[in-house]
Amino acid sequence: MHSEPLTPWIETAPFEVRYAETDAMGVVYYANYLVWFEAARGTFCRAYEIDYVALEKNGTPAAVVEAYCRYRAPARYGDRIITRVRLTELKGSTMRFEYEVLNADTRQLLAEGWTRHVWINREGKPTRCPEEIRRRVFPEDNTPTPQS
Amino acid sequence: MHSEPLTPWIETAPFEVRYAETDAMGVVYYANYLVWFEAARGTFCRAYEIDYVALEKNGTPAAVVEAYCRYRAPARYGDRIITRVRLTELKGSTMRFEYEVLNADTRQLLAEGWTRHVWINREGKPTRCPEEIRRRVFPEDNTPTPQS
Amino acid sequence: MHSEPLTPWIETAPFEVRYAETDAMGVVYYANYLVWFEAARGTFCRAYEIDYVALEKNGTPAAVVEAYCRYRAPARYGDRIITRVRLTELKGSTMRFEYEVLNADTRQLLAEGWTRHVWINREGKPTRCPEEIRRRVFPEDNTPTPQS
Amino acid sequence: MHSEPLTPWIETAPFEVRYAETDAMGVVYYANYLVWFEAARGTFCRAYEIDYVALEKNGTPAAVVEAYCRYRAPARYGDRIITRVRLTELKGSTMRFEYEVLNADTRQLLAEGWTRHVWINREGKPTRCPEEIRRRVFPEDNTPTPQS
Repeated sequence: MHSEPLTPWIETAPFEVRYAETDAMGVVYYANYLVWFEAARGTFCRAYEIDYVALEKNGTPAAVVEAYCRYRAPARYGDRIITRVRLTELKGSTMRFEYEVLNADTRQLLAEGWTRHVWINREGKPTRCPEEIRRRVFPEDNTPTPQS
Repeated sequence: MHSEPLTPWIETAPFEVRYAETDAMGVVYYANYLVWFEAARGTFCRAYEIDYVALEKNGTPAAVVEAYCRYRAPARYGDRIITRVRLTELKGSTMRFEYEVLNADTRQLLAEGWTRHVWINREGKPTRCPEEIRRRVFPEDNTPTPQS
Repeated sequence: MHSEPLTPWIETAPFEVRYAETDAMGVVYYANYLVWFEAARGTFCRAYEIDYVALEKNGTPAAVVEAYCRYRAPARYGDRIITRVRLTELKGSTMRFEYEVLNADTRQLLAEGWTRHVWINREGKPTRCPEEIRRRVFPEDNTPTPQS
Repeated sequence: MHSEPLTPWIETAPFEVRYAETDAMGVVYYANYLVWFEAARGTFCRAYEIDYVALEKNGTPAAVVEAYCRYRAPARYGDRIITRVRLTELKGSTMRFEYEVLNADTRQLLAEGWTRHVWINREGKPTRCPEEIRRRVFPEDNTPTPQS
């Protein structure tokens, strides 16, 4: 499942599983791992000082086009969780992230997955990833990025 | 809890409780009843041909300012549910709705509640409820509505 | 993405997108498609008269082990949606379903995906899929199923 | 809205608003404040070393019977939030909590509310609040509690 990473793992702070996130089987409902993936993306943006809200207001939001999750072990109410994320692809209009969901206390791997995103313009067409992203994630990279 | 209703009850079609809506106690998580209330408001708008999306785009969305729910009996995965709603207040910038959540098969009352909403303008200030709402809900009422 | 189907598509009744399901981009939040997949599984069980709640009480719930979604076009508040599902694998302890999410009025494909599930016993170990499932889905199949 | 408090305010750690919690109006969906109330109850239990999961397993869960929320100002994606809770009633089978939702950085009050809960036994009947709760919350209170 893993691609060559472009960044190290960025971890969220530990957070507790909410009762709202459990289901009648007594474990975290499967769709909520995608919510936790997104929380990790938020942490990623803060870590690299990417102002996602401003990008979106400027008319270049990123739409998720694929999501995948592999569930390894259940999480339960009150468990302390960490989610971590790393960038594995950034070319043209596409970005791909990988995730791991861990029990914060035991470091047991609970789930892993990836998402793929495409930057879109006001007309809803794929558009090149904003330069700000590249600059923030690869500040040392001075070579001019090739135009697509 | 009940005020004098301004409209009859408007009922949603029956819908099944989703697994996502249950929690580790095996019953529907308490916040989801507010989601069901909102689904009933959607049915109310369709019944009175109120185009809520257009109103919102025109800059006059309604913000919820209060919500209350009384839980009477639990709902479980797979139960068929009906939610019904009626308007109990419409004056100035304020609207109030009442709700009942019923088991669609037994008609048992599972929960009841109310919400209060305020129409707001582009500046975020309370503004008079759009005329379209009054016209749709009270088409027979020809007396000019007083200006506030 | 598609495997050889074991059943025809089973469709949910049309349902409206809830305001709760949208996000600040004005479209349905990506994790909610997995909720809709699960609603389709519920319809599948009812169509084949599989009493999933009873199976679970008897100590053989099915745990989701993988989920994948490909997002094709956004869904918006008030859109009428249909989700459909078909079984594409049923062997040993494993079940795999495929899904399509459609706009109920235009039949536009909004998303597609699949999930893989493993039946587990009281000890949390993979266990053979309950005979009831096979009997319900393939009633014409009289050959004794091999014991694992 | 406020009753005489039985405990001081207990605060959650600050947490960021998730994209999943916003809706198409660009603000946090109203039902999610009840999820945040519940997160505060979890913090309350940890602060007083109440093992809620164990109580539930022993057959005495607490069912929510009423919930109320007053919305004062919207929360947006990325805002840092604190929720705080205090106990305002503990008699017979009933418990009542009050909540405030604050912007963690500005301390602006975003919402406030309360919930009422009833302890229930295996037969689903109201039952006296477990002694453990009283002991944990009022450790200095040595007078024997009256039997109901």
